[in-house]
Amino acid sequence: MKARCVREEMAYTGEELRSLWIYRTFDLEGDAIAWFAGPCEVSGEHLVDQVDAAANDHIKAARMMHFIIEHFDGDLNHAILRQRLLVCMAGEVLGGEVAGLRRVGDDLFVGEKKLSVSIATVSPVSNLIHFAVNIDPTGAPVRACGLEELGVDPWRFAERLAAAYVGEAERMAKARCTIRGVP
Amino acid sequence: MKARCVREEMAYTGEELRSLWIYRTFDLEGDAIAWFAGPCEVSGEHLVDQVDAAANDHIKAARMMHFIIEHFDGDLNHAILRQRLLVCMAGEVLGGEVAGLRRVGDDLFVGEKKLSVSIATVSPVSNLIHFAVNIDPTGAPVRACGLEELGVDPWRFAERLAAAYVGEAERMAKARCTIRGVP
Amino acid sequence: MKARCVREEMAYTGEELRSLWIYRTFDLEGDAIAWFAGPCEVSGEHLVDQVDAAANDHIKAARMMHFIIEHFDGDLNHAILRQRLLVCMAGEVLGGEVAGLRRVGDDLFVGEKKLSVSIATVSPVSNLIHFAVNIDPTGAPVRACGLEELGVDPWRFAERLAAAYVGEAERMAKARCTIRGVP
Amino acid sequence: MKARCVREEMAYTGEELRSLWIYRTFDLEGDAIAWFAGPCEVSGEHLVDQVDAAANDHIKAARMMHFIIEHFDGDLNHAILRQRLLVCMAGEVLGGEVAGLRRVGDDLFVGEKKLSVSIATVSPVSNLIHFAVNIDPTGAPVRACGLEELGVDPWRFAERLAAAYVGEAERMAKARCTIRGVP
Amino acid sequence: MKARCVREEMAYTGEELRSLWIYRTFDLEGDAIAWFAGPCEVSGEHLVDQVDAAANDHIKAARMMHFIIEHFDGDLNHAILRQRLLVCMAGEVLGGEVAGLRRVGDDLFVGEKKLSVSIATVSPVSNLIHFAVNIDPTGAPVRACGLEELGVDPWRFAERLAAAYVGEAERMAKARCTIRGVP
Amino acid sequence: MKARCVREEMAYTGEELRSLWIYRTFDLEGDAIAWFAGPCEVSGEHLVDQVDAAANDHIKAARMMHFIIEHFDGDLNHAILRQRLLVCMAGEVLGGEVAGLRRVGDDLFVGEKKLSVSIATVSPVSNLIHFAVNIDPTGAPVRACGLEELGVDPWRFAERLAAAYVGEAERMAKARCTIRGVP
Repeated sequence: MKARCVREEMAYTGEELRSLWIYRTFDLEGDAIAWFAGPCEVSGEHLVDQVDAAANDHIKAARMMHFIIEHFDGDLNHAILRQRLLVCMAGEVLGGEVAGLRRVGDDLFVGEKKLSVSIATVSPVSNLIHFAVNIDPTGAPVRACGLEELGVDPWRFAERLAAAYVGEAERMAKARCTIRGVP
Repeated sequence: MKARCVREEMAYTGEELRSLWIYRTFDLEGDAIAWFAGPCEVSGEHLVDQVDAAANDHIKAARMMHFIIEHFDGDLNHAILRQRLLVCMAGEVLGGEVAGLRRVGDDLFVGEKKLSVSIATVSPVSNLIHFAVNIDPTGAPVRACGLEELGVDPWRFAERLAAAYVGEAERMAKARCTIRGVP
Repeated sequence: MKARCVREEMAYTGEELRSLWIYRTFDLEGDAIAWFAGPCEVSGEHLVDQVDAAANDHIKAARMMHFIIEHFDGDLNHAILRQRLLVCMAGEVLGGEVAGLRRVGDDLFVGEKKLSVSIATVSPVSNLIHFAVNIDPTGAPVRACGLEELGVDPWRFAERLAAAYVGEAERMAKARCTIRGVP
Repeated sequence: MKARCVREEMAYTGEELRSLWIYRTFDLEGDAIAWFAGPCEVSGEHLVDQVDAAANDHIKAARMMHFIIEHFDGDLNHAILRQRLLVCMAGEVLGGEVAGLRRVGDDLFVGEKKLSVSIATVSPVSNLIHFAVNIDPTGAPVRACGLEELGVDPWRFAERLAAAYVGEAERMAKARCTIRGVP
Repeated sequence: MKARCVREEMAYTGEELRSLWIYRTFDLEGDAIAWFAGPCEVSGEHLVDQVDAAANDHIKAARMMHFIIEHFDGDLNHAILRQRLLVCMAGEVLGGEVAGLRRVGDDLFVGEKKLSVSIATVSPVSNLIHFAVNIDPTGAPVRACGLEELGVDPWRFAERLAAAYVGEAERMAKARCTIRGVP
Repeated sequence: MKARCVREEMAYTGEELRSLWIYRTFDLEGDAIAWFAGPCEVSGEHLVDQVDAAANDHIKAARMMHFIIEHFDGDLNHAILRQRLLVCMAGEVLGGEVAGLRRVGDDLFVGEKKLSVSIATVSPVSNLIHFAVNIDPTGAPVRACGLEELGVDPWRFAERLAAAYVGEAERMAKARCTIRGVP
């Protein structure tokens, strides 16, 4: 699994969550995690979660650290499990630095303030996850906070989370190959 | 998904990790998590992880809190993802109470001492997970610690972890049904 | 599995057979069956069965009782099996009331007159079934009959079929969890 | 899909429900339905349904018409759907001849008397179904009736059911190949 | 599996690689291989391989023998395996006639000259393969050769390859049904 | 995918075709191909192909080059496709050296003499292939020939085939990740 930090600022609009976007955009072949910072605004037809879409909701923040993950295997249940695991791991990475951090499903909160957004889905050829953590939550439609005010270096956080996720993926792939079935 | 706390002391030998054992033993139908306390000794042919089996390793502790989980769907990758998520969640539940707790793959450690064991596998009809946390680690073949010495009430911990896991399973099942695919 | 009777008259054009339409339209989350009465006209690009499409065929009736079913699991073979089971069950429900009723694949006939239409397919995230029984077959491109002339109350029929289908789905889900594999 | 009527009397003990038994016993290659008449007695470890096994239940009748079906594809959900469809179709075949016939899940009843038994399961390489209809129910552990007392020719019934099932399997396989997906 | 030789000259643009195109165009139902001769020009959005698309590459030749294959089962890995097998078999068919033929992945070469192009993919309901062998390579963006200059009758070659592929598919389907699983 | 040449002489009896045998025997983790030379005798319950088993057939040769392959993914159709591809590739490797070589399904022949045996199957956790080429065919139950009399160095052949298979597996895995789906 490849990991790529993209230093140029990029906006996330939801259109990026499609098969092979990572490959076409960053030339990363195969299972990959890429991350970049930039504004976030997802609405209307680009919303993948139909709970948001049905509520005419939108996702917005002035600046977030975005993670896009693509795995070329698995069904929607794999995608959702991988997403939850990723958000748990984000909690593990941030836990030591941020007081009052808690995870609720695929969201991180600090107290009552939302720190992150996430969606997992499938394309015809892959599993896809978008996970983004506010750096500056300005514009968010709910009470939110960001890494900036929490004093967390977003790039260092991203680097650690990506390394942890890649490591976990490799350990799971390895474990997969030493387990026998049971009756 | 059903949850059942079993108050009678039971030993875990590895034979319990088979399809429909929860149903036959506790009369729990469908996806379920059951937990009980008791000694642990798994060796030889009952080892599911062939890394352990190849090393003539064994798993042992005087008393552990055992969790057995069965999901009637999914492949081995689902089983492993569910297991990692469970162990992460055990970390979330214990994190506030236990200083120096860390997760490495499917293991919890306190400092250099191992707190837990776990395996995930498949049967012909289901996903299966065994996760066990030392209460009293006496007899463990590696440096280990237990909930007792950490001052954690094992039954309260188990109750909280099981509730969190069931809640997560339900949230994921719900999320599964409001997500559209992407191109 | 949820069931919802929609009392307002709605037309069926084929566009309704898409993932999460039930959720977006009726706010029913998860596996569901919804039914409503209204005219039916499906043609051209909205035809899912390419036998019809290739023949420049169309589906039409002045008023039908429409059932839309979505299951958030399964492949196309599951969808087709579920559809056949549903049509069999419609036959069981109507059998006592309608003389000369017979099922041929996914169609019901009374003598030589066609009583129903049906299609099963997959979306990127689900199984989908449309099944519709003529109330007033006026406009149908083949010899057809309807519940009205047969003296069957369409709402009572729909209620009974939906209840039977939901019950069957639940019994099957339960059976799934008490069966062991064989060598 | 092949169909084979076996005229020699054979007992069914549950051991027959295993992969490739039809091939090894009757030299029928590929998806197949085979039927034969004989006594039935299934108990203990040969019970596939753990509800029966847990209850120390057994299945018994002096003489039944047995159907064994194997499909070399599909998961346990396909097996169960195919089984329900088969039992529905048995109802369609018998419906005209037997008053008071009704289906409840995978069982046929005449009034309160049980007419049939059935199980569906998976082997490592296939879907398997056993369906058996009492000819002479003597020895059954519940109130039961048989085709003999109902005046139904068991061989003619079996022939018709098998032909209907094979026809349905072929129609479904054909339908599978003319359906497009939807968004 | 059905095979159809189409004698009318047809161009291949990439749009033909979609589910049920064979059925709609040639009225062939079910798993099928169809072949025809004609010019080839695939570019831009019709490229399925994103390596080509990313490189702004295109596929072109004055006249090729085109094979379109659709199987109504399988995932993308099945599609790719089937494609490699097909290309191997093309090598087997041509091997006796063409000196210096070699296969590299899904391509055939004669010395350093490219003889063929191929892609395998999935639709929502099927596996799809396009394989085409140059008859007259004029216009190809790389060094290429064609059957014409090699003195190979393209129609006879196509007939032999299609027959071999259909035979192999049937032998594999048959083998599938006589194999037991192992522990 | 790992490759391992085992220089010590070992017999093949059929028992070796089980999940994780490569790992336990050669300490090779993950997808792997291992090869070794030795006598072959498979009969009775160790036969995986029930055509052989039903015919009371057996597989025997004084010395063969054995390949055991395990992939930790895929169903029985993947296993069979991989096997056919492997046998094709053995043909490609041997083709230049051996006159009159031809492939029929999963067998290689030289003229009318059988050169190889092969089986593909599934375990609860993996795909498995055994492919063996006679070095000295003495004892074979059919007319057979061997690499020795053909003047082919079995170790060099094995090395080339294994390298080709590993290369193909890697190219396919890479191709898997640059292909988009089609409608």
